[in-house]
Amino acid sequence: MCQLLGMNCNTPTDITFSFAGFARRGGETAEHRDGWGIGFFEDYGCRVFLDHLPAHASIIAQVVQHYPIKSRNVVAHIRKATQGDINLANTHPFQRELWGRYWLFAHNGNLTGLSARGTRFMPVGTTDSEQAFCWLLNTLADRYSTLPDCAEVFSALAELTAELHTHGTFNYLLSDGRCLYAHCSTDLYYLIRRAPFHQAHLVDTDVCLDFAEVTTPDDCVAVIATQPLTDNEEWIRLQPGELVAFADGEPVRRKLCNMS
Amino acid sequence: MCQLLGMNCNTPTDITFSFAGFARRGGETAEHRDGWGIGFFEDYGCRVFLDHLPAHASIIAQVVQHYPIKSRNVVAHIRKATQGDINLANTHPFQRELWGRYWLFAHNGNLTGLSARGTRFMPVGTTDSEQAFCWLLNTLADRYSTLPDCAEVFSALAELTAELHTHGTFNYLLSDGRCLYAHCSTDLYYLIRRAPFHQAHLVDTDVCLDFAEVTTPDDCVAVIATQPLTDNEEWIRLQPGELVAFADGEPVRRKLCNMS
Repeated sequence: MCQLLGMNCNTPTDITFSFAGFARRGGETAEHRDGWGIGFFEDYGCRVFLDHLPAHASIIAQVVQHYPIKSRNVVAHIRKATQGDINLANTHPFQRELWGRYWLFAHNGNLTGLSARGTRFMPVGTTDSEQAFCWLLNTLADRYSTLPDCAEVFSALAELTAELHTHGTFNYLLSDGRCLYAHCSTDLYYLIRRAPFHQAHLVDTDVCLDFAEVTTPDDCVAVIATQPLTDNEEWIRLQPGELVAFADGEPVRRKLCNMS
Repeated sequence: MCQLLGMNCNTPTDITFSFAGFARRGGETAEHRDGWGIGFFEDYGCRVFLDHLPAHASIIAQVVQHYPIKSRNVVAHIRKATQGDINLANTHPFQRELWGRYWLFAHNGNLTGLSARGTRFMPVGTTDSEQAFCWLLNTLADRYSTLPDCAEVFSALAELTAELHTHGTFNYLLSDGRCLYAHCSTDLYYLIRRAPFHQAHLVDTDVCLDFAEVTTPDDCVAVIATQPLTDNEEWIRLQPGELVAFADGEPVRRKLCNMS
């Protein structure tokens, strides 16, 4: 399957350290070599870098590792194809606009038997993941004529995720640039970095960063990943079926979606 | 105002030579320093590189100049802001999905007094350009429930462009990955490169490329730009009000939109 990486912060922060370890899993320390992508919200704007090449060998991934884009919400993905060919149209994260805001979505898992719901948002590629993203957005667009607040989005997502979860494994990250929503089907961890900051050491490459040197005392950063990225920090495992909304670098809402 | 660069080809082709000259106009040989962007279709997929920095000084622009992405439809833009702040949300090209296809749009000009038409596609930023793009897509989405062929899109665009043109200067490039539509309000040129290929020399930097060495005899490439990019090739100027559809590297339809 694939791996996910997300970040949600209370102040624009770069993800170069975490991405340096994550990108190595794209064909070097792990087998996810079927493309990769990363999307950054910058205020209302959004930019997505995609490549169908393995992340560890991608020139664009190298640029992203060395170009510190400051963002409060990041969604990244390295792919090991299950459904859909290896090409750009099937590369996560997927992006759409709804209610004058961009939405980014990346998925780790495998869904089967999902029927289309509506035609306003339609998949361009052939993955179950993009189909699920369009299914979610079509349903949200039907329910709300204008942008709902994050609490309403969370509540709707909890219900809709439970339905989609019946179709298979559905770990995902979703963001509208305000909050980052993370759902765990099987594997998803997060950690919070806040003062006092410490040195962190990557699992996938022998690199350390002392966050005390690159942060201010008020910074609060949540990092979410399929597997822990560092080996000397406290990663918290989400429960199967758990949906968490992160805002300003902290989990602000959580619910078990498979429980009625 | 801004400058536009587009490419439409019969075979996937890289745009590194043309973009090398074009990017210099982003703050070096011309004053368009308020951000830049370029979008590449690769089959059904699409990737867009955006930066709010001047193109001539952008690390990402340097990567695009040296990373030969092969594409049959490219839309690029360097910005000199008229309406809207300098930020990522206001950076062209803009991207949306309609009927399961991505659409890219970039605009050079200034439109005033344009009212919103529909809410399916809404601007994220504050430019007249993105507003016009949403206006076009909302109107097309209302008229056609499934993807029309390029002839139908051209016919609809000719009518809609005439209406938008009454709001001001409206040079634009639009592509759905099949065709590239180019409309000239004031300044837009194109050239066709096909066998026998020759050496081309850029206007903005002393660089030559012998296309005979990098092409096959069947290649056919249309390059469209606000101002000619080379000084030893035949650039054809579009007429004010003229809409041209390019397919497989050639102009296949043309119409004066301001004529009834």
